[in-house]
Amino acid sequence: MRIGVDLGGTNIKVGVVDEQGSILGQNVGPTPIEQGVEGIIRDITQQMKDLLEVLHISKGEIQSIGIGVPGLVGKNTRQIIYMPNLFLKDVVLDKKIEKVFHIPTFVSNDAAAAALGEKIVGSTRGISNSVFITLGTGVGGGIIINDQIYSGGHGWGSEIGHIYVGENFYNCNCGKNGCLETFASATAMIKYTKKRLSEGSEDTLILQKVEGDLKRIDAKLILDSAKEGDALALEVKNRFIKYLAIAIVNLYNILDPECIAIGGGISQAGDFILNPLRQEVNKRVFTKEVSYGDIVLAELGNDAGIIGAAFLENY
Amino acid sequence: MRIGVDLGGTNIKVGVVDEQGSILGQNVGPTPIEQGVEGIIRDITQQMKDLLEVLHISKGEIQSIGIGVPGLVGKNTRQIIYMPNLFLKDVVLDKKIEKVFHIPTFVSNDAAAAALGEKIVGSTRGISNSVFITLGTGVGGGIIINDQIYSGGHGWGSEIGHIYVGENFYNCNCGKNGCLETFASATAMIKYTKKRLSEGSEDTLILQKVEGDLKRIDAKLILDSAKEGDALALEVKNRFIKYLAIAIVNLYNILDPECIAIGGGISQAGDFILNPLRQEVNKRVFTKEVSYGDIVLAELGNDAGIIGAAFLENY
Repeated sequence: MRIGVDLGGTNIKVGVVDEQGSILGQNVGPTPIEQGVEGIIRDITQQMKDLLEVLHISKGEIQSIGIGVPGLVGKNTRQIIYMPNLFLKDVVLDKKIEKVFHIPTFVSNDAAAAALGEKIVGSTRGISNSVFITLGTGVGGGIIINDQIYSGGHGWGSEIGHIYVGENFYNCNCGKNGCLETFASATAMIKYTKKRLSEGSEDTLILQKVEGDLKRIDAKLILDSAKEGDALALEVKNRFIKYLAIAIVNLYNILDPECIAIGGGISQAGDFILNPLRQEVNKRVFTKEVSYGDIVLAELGNDAGIIGAAFLENY
Repeated sequence: MRIGVDLGGTNIKVGVVDEQGSILGQNVGPTPIEQGVEGIIRDITQQMKDLLEVLHISKGEIQSIGIGVPGLVGKNTRQIIYMPNLFLKDVVLDKKIEKVFHIPTFVSNDAAAAALGEKIVGSTRGISNSVFITLGTGVGGGIIINDQIYSGGHGWGSEIGHIYVGENFYNCNCGKNGCLETFASATAMIKYTKKRLSEGSEDTLILQKVEGDLKRIDAKLILDSAKEGDALALEVKNRFIKYLAIAIVNLYNILDPECIAIGGGISQAGDFILNPLRQEVNKRVFTKEVSYGDIVLAELGNDAGIIGAAFLENY
């Protein structure tokens, strides 16, 4: 058995995973950002102790611990260089947790861990070369090459959300213009909707659904309105599809993966986004002379990060 | 000793390479495109025989043959699926040449072979993860991951020239709009210069140098004019730098290579393009919190393809 930890900007999730990749039990608690790195370590170790107790599992039965973190992890040092959402830089987690638990501990970028979870028991299992893209508040990604997590020469590869896909009307949090994240995240869909509303496109189901309260607009509501045929919602959705397709074609041109798995909250719209996405990608591929990796929906939802983290020792 | 073949749209180059990666001798002849695949095979084998004779090397001393081809090579079949510049599809070269020479023969994409040549004895030697970009009539590329050629899940990864970098005023030969090749090749620089001339930007050294004959405009002449401070030439050069930087930042975001080597005819401008390119890339990287792979000039020129092809057996 192994422990996987998904350290997020909002919550810390901890799970015990068996060798087949099934989660035997998990718990979740808010991330104590204000307590800094020591508070986060305290919280992770306490959650692990609590969970083992509930499951009647002893520490000796745990082979390894893995932690997916929302940031850049140095390749050889495993030092966490930057976690913008946790306001932390230059953090060491693995050795500090090893000191408490005396179990080998590993860290990785959270989206890379989720990509690994999907590879072990989810949508990309059995596939040697794949890319996982998570479409949520932001856009993240993980790359599997030759059955291993690929994290680049220094450890900060797979920043899929920052692939340049075209000029945009607002800048990314990273300070640049044109990042995929500013076109294909929930935030991006909401921002573009509000922009179009401010330009006078007010004859829309979206406004009716939120009863005029713009703060209530979210990606699900936009996509639901698109399903009902609302013109503005369809425009927002088509824009999202177009730029996501550009990023995927860039991934084809560079990596030629056998499979691209789409996860994150937006992917819950299922075929409603998957089918037009496949069509748009097919229009944009370099040549029709060859076949490309399929685009599929991720299967594990929020569990992917815990499962992948649990197996970091081997990848 | 090994034989490396660089099969191009214009010439076939054949070289004998020793185990240290030095070319002991080479020859070159025009590609007999009009004679189809059989003519090309006849030509390659004849060139190889001639070269061995001149060098007083017997066939028995040759350990392997490698051929870099201008097209897509299937991953496991090694079938050459598509060579647009040679007007050939679904070609098998390796087995046919093995039948003549009875020496193990391997094929790969030509830019991937050149990337390997640079990795073995050139600009990226000793580096495990690198990208080679060749800027010539078109834009090609090769990727080295974990000290091996990475050619993707199916064999057609590293189509660097078709990374989307922004909307352009003309479409790529592949039929799409926005490919790097339409911004960062010699062809692209010439086309953009002519477009600006037709828009009235005629007060330029470029027109003086070619004495009004637009057919004589080439990339070297444009870059030479830029060195002399010509406004239009500088505009063309800056546009080239901008979009090449976007592609390189996309490569950083996806692959995080330790090094990016720039080769091809345009790279002969040296620091005049390398320095502004580094600056532009530095402006566009995702975060300044980490360091990125250096951008360097390729070292082997046209030899890279022969040397890399010669060692395909091992990569």
